[in-house]
Amino acid sequence: MARVGEFNFIDQFLKTQSAQAQSFHRQPYALGIGDDAALIPPSALGPDEQLAVSTDMLIEGRHYVVDVDPRSLGHKALAVNLSDLAAMGARPVGCTLAAALRSIDEAWLREFLEGFFELSRDFQCPLIGGDTTGLSAGASQVFSVTVLGAVPVGQALRRDGVRIGDDLWVSGMLGGPAYALSQASQQEKLNWPAPRLALGAQLRGIATAAIDVSDGLGSEIGHLLTASGAVCAARGESGALSAVMNWEAIPLSRDVQRAVDAQALDVNDARIFAVTGGDEYELAFTAPVQRREEIRGLMQPLGLELTRIGSIQGSNSQQIVWQTADGSAIDRATEARCQQPGFTHF
Amino acid sequence: MARVGEFNFIDQFLKTQSAQAQSFHRQPYALGIGDDAALIPPSALGPDEQLAVSTDMLIEGRHYVVDVDPRSLGHKALAVNLSDLAAMGARPVGCTLAAALRSIDEAWLREFLEGFFELSRDFQCPLIGGDTTGLSAGASQVFSVTVLGAVPVGQALRRDGVRIGDDLWVSGMLGGPAYALSQASQQEKLNWPAPRLALGAQLRGIATAAIDVSDGLGSEIGHLLTASGAVCAARGESGALSAVMNWEAIPLSRDVQRAVDAQALDVNDARIFAVTGGDEYELAFTAPVQRREEIRGLMQPLGLELTRIGSIQGSNSQQIVWQTADGSAIDRATEARCQQPGFTHF
Repeated sequence: MARVGEFNFIDQFLKTQSAQAQSFHRQPYALGIGDDAALIPPSALGPDEQLAVSTDMLIEGRHYVVDVDPRSLGHKALAVNLSDLAAMGARPVGCTLAAALRSIDEAWLREFLEGFFELSRDFQCPLIGGDTTGLSAGASQVFSVTVLGAVPVGQALRRDGVRIGDDLWVSGMLGGPAYALSQASQQEKLNWPAPRLALGAQLRGIATAAIDVSDGLGSEIGHLLTASGAVCAARGESGALSAVMNWEAIPLSRDVQRAVDAQALDVNDARIFAVTGGDEYELAFTAPVQRREEIRGLMQPLGLELTRIGSIQGSNSQQIVWQTADGSAIDRATEARCQQPGFTHF
Repeated sequence: MARVGEFNFIDQFLKTQSAQAQSFHRQPYALGIGDDAALIPPSALGPDEQLAVSTDMLIEGRHYVVDVDPRSLGHKALAVNLSDLAAMGARPVGCTLAAALRSIDEAWLREFLEGFFELSRDFQCPLIGGDTTGLSAGASQVFSVTVLGAVPVGQALRRDGVRIGDDLWVSGMLGGPAYALSQASQQEKLNWPAPRLALGAQLRGIATAAIDVSDGLGSEIGHLLTASGAVCAARGESGALSAVMNWEAIPLSRDVQRAVDAQALDVNDARIFAVTGGDEYELAFTAPVQRREEIRGLMQPLGLELTRIGSIQGSNSQQIVWQTADGSAIDRATEARCQQPGFTHF
């Protein structure tokens, strides 16, 4: 981080921010932006906590459009990383931001940082370090965020803890981002994901495994089954794990449900948006059947819908099976469309 | 990090690596690449240690050329970050790598990762997480590395500890990268920086401040004076800090000295390369006069030259003054060329 001119604009921004923002961002850390490395005080980690680290890159033209609202982009750059911490049941400790920028467009940057810092304040995740690079005129801008979190030792919500017989749950309502993408006028809605940190923290000790569904529900459930299936196989319990899913239970976001109600969208198409669409920052998690009431009890305090959408079975080969409420298979054409992979980088 | 296909190629690479590499990279960390976040075990941080974090981005066309040796690029991507930890006196704990790649060119990536992992092994800094993004054909590749380090509480080598009367030292021999840049055929030499982690660790409790000189000696000394000058001013000791430098003491790298000896390069031009050139990963540090013998005693065990190049004075305004051995000023034209800023991103 020893670069001339680096983070001058962020320092400048922080200085002109409210006293509150300054005291939040600068005081709790003995040494943040401006030295070779940021130092995190020993008090940031509890005696029985361990560190969780996640990193994500947002690239212009790939993850966002050139004329994106910079404030929503700043929000999203941090939110996608906080969502990874949420999926581990971790509490945010701090973050770093590396930015490659074409030129210093102060108004644009101010808005980007406002979106970033707003979320950083809301979730107590101060920016502690960074790196900035200037780009030539034609190049794509890049933002790379790394978040550090703390989680009690042994209590992290991993991907490989799913057990045969577990329920499968998902938070929130799905399909909104994919539906919006199909409606050009609504693309703006993509960019305000709310990381489910409070849910992740509450699920420690209840959930057996968790993942965020940023690449699409179906594909992320596949990751849970793969990671946990290997563990089950090693224990000799089953060759693989499968998920038997309730097609009609998939929670649809308000806009999607409204379009279905108005007969502007077929309900199967809506559910396919919800199952295959990316850019969702809800959590999918598994838990023993006995924990159902406890999990339902989290909904009101969190102000968040939690829906039981399936259950886990041992099987010879890994599968996600979609059934209607009466236990019959959904039609083959729809099932085939659900098998589409989520967002793949290559 | 919840991306489909992500880090498959790194997982693949690790699987085909030697058993040694695998056991180093996979065993010590309960959960590395492959979950939403990497978990660092509590044992990674000693009871009296705190965490240091640094992040840096390398962008094609900006920090390296398209036809760079991928192995040296992999080395450099990690080395520039380890150099920041060295300048804090920190010990590496782990790192994350976010990569934006045009396509999976397996041979290129294998070499990149070999360079990365070689350094990662040498300095016990395992890769614990990451993010990969696919780019379209014309886009510039980007690598963003974040390193985590551990340093005993209160012993980090910060930039703001310089005291009036301190000696100013630099490690190694300078000018090589800037001279190589001026000689097209030698550009390859830029890309194998050796992070001075052992030196940084030894300097804890001896040095009052340290910085890595990646943006050029002169400009980085300026950062030390600025950060520490503010602290001195707050203590009422002096309005600012200045560095009085010995022009003839600047340690020149072997290639540069050879060119001077062969009269292919003017000695003043050589020293200007050493003072203003970037891409140097040596440490500049300050220490009390009484510690000179102790510091000289580090050279042999570390196999590293340490040169006393100046001393710190209180002053009304911050300055770097270059003098010859007899205490007279260097000529104005040369001094003006030394004031050139180092590598600036904007």
